[in-house]
Amino acid sequence: MTDIANEIEEGLKFTPRFDSQGLVTAVVTDHKSGDVLMVAHMNAEAIRATLASGEAYFWSRSRQALWRKGETSGNVLRVREVRVDCDQDALWLIADLEGSGVCHTGRASCFYRVLGANALSGQLNPLPA
Amino acid sequence: MTDIANEIEEGLKFTPRFDSQGLVTAVVTDHKSGDVLMVAHMNAEAIRATLASGEAYFWSRSRQALWRKGETSGNVLRVREVRVDCDQDALWLIADLEGSGVCHTGRASCFYRVLGANALSGQLNPLPA
Repeated sequence: MTDIANEIEEGLKFTPRFDSQGLVTAVVTDHKSGDVLMVAHMNAEAIRATLASGEAYFWSRSRQALWRKGETSGNVLRVREVRVDCDQDALWLIADLEGSGVCHTGRASCFYRVLGANALSGQLNPLPA
Repeated sequence: MTDIANEIEEGLKFTPRFDSQGLVTAVVTDHKSGDVLMVAHMNAEAIRATLASGEAYFWSRSRQALWRKGETSGNVLRVREVRVDCDQDALWLIADLEGSGVCHTGRASCFYRVLGANALSGQLNPLPA
């Protein structure tokens, strides 16, 4: 392993490995239920705003704009902790949800359907409400 | 909303929205602890192999190869459930870990460091072992 790779993995300096669009993947889980609520992307500005405010900010790839979660819906994510993975290209936000849910469909989590055994040629199953 | 967008979000047909490299993001959580273990990528082949075998397969972007998790380490992920998000570009795998951990550094989870309040200009904090 190179010294640089070792520093990224074992060091205590935050050096996010942004992709070609300046983004890292961000996974949000609910502090209480442990459920994965959503997966989104953050750029440096979104990370900075999240750490400074304690509310989750993301980068909207479709709108190409900084996006404070809940800015229109009111469903704000209060971030308790942000963790980074070994190669520093993904973040894990542990959050409390203020409001009814994170998903723009109105559901608590964006993950409301389960793949069946032959999902690639078939059907999804809704989670029980 | 267009009919196509509505079908993707509300329908029960699995139509993964692969990116330009044919990949979706995959988040793995531990069934028992609820912890996020790792974030990786899956192509259609990895999804098919995972559903068929019950063990997690990913696509290694660095090696450009299908990758059965644990094929060298023995730390296999037994997948209990795969969920898909609203816009079908991310998967959530709920799994049982066979072995000591998923991270190639030897740790249980790839997320073993926490961002401090000023992480972008400063330090990470290790999680207690």
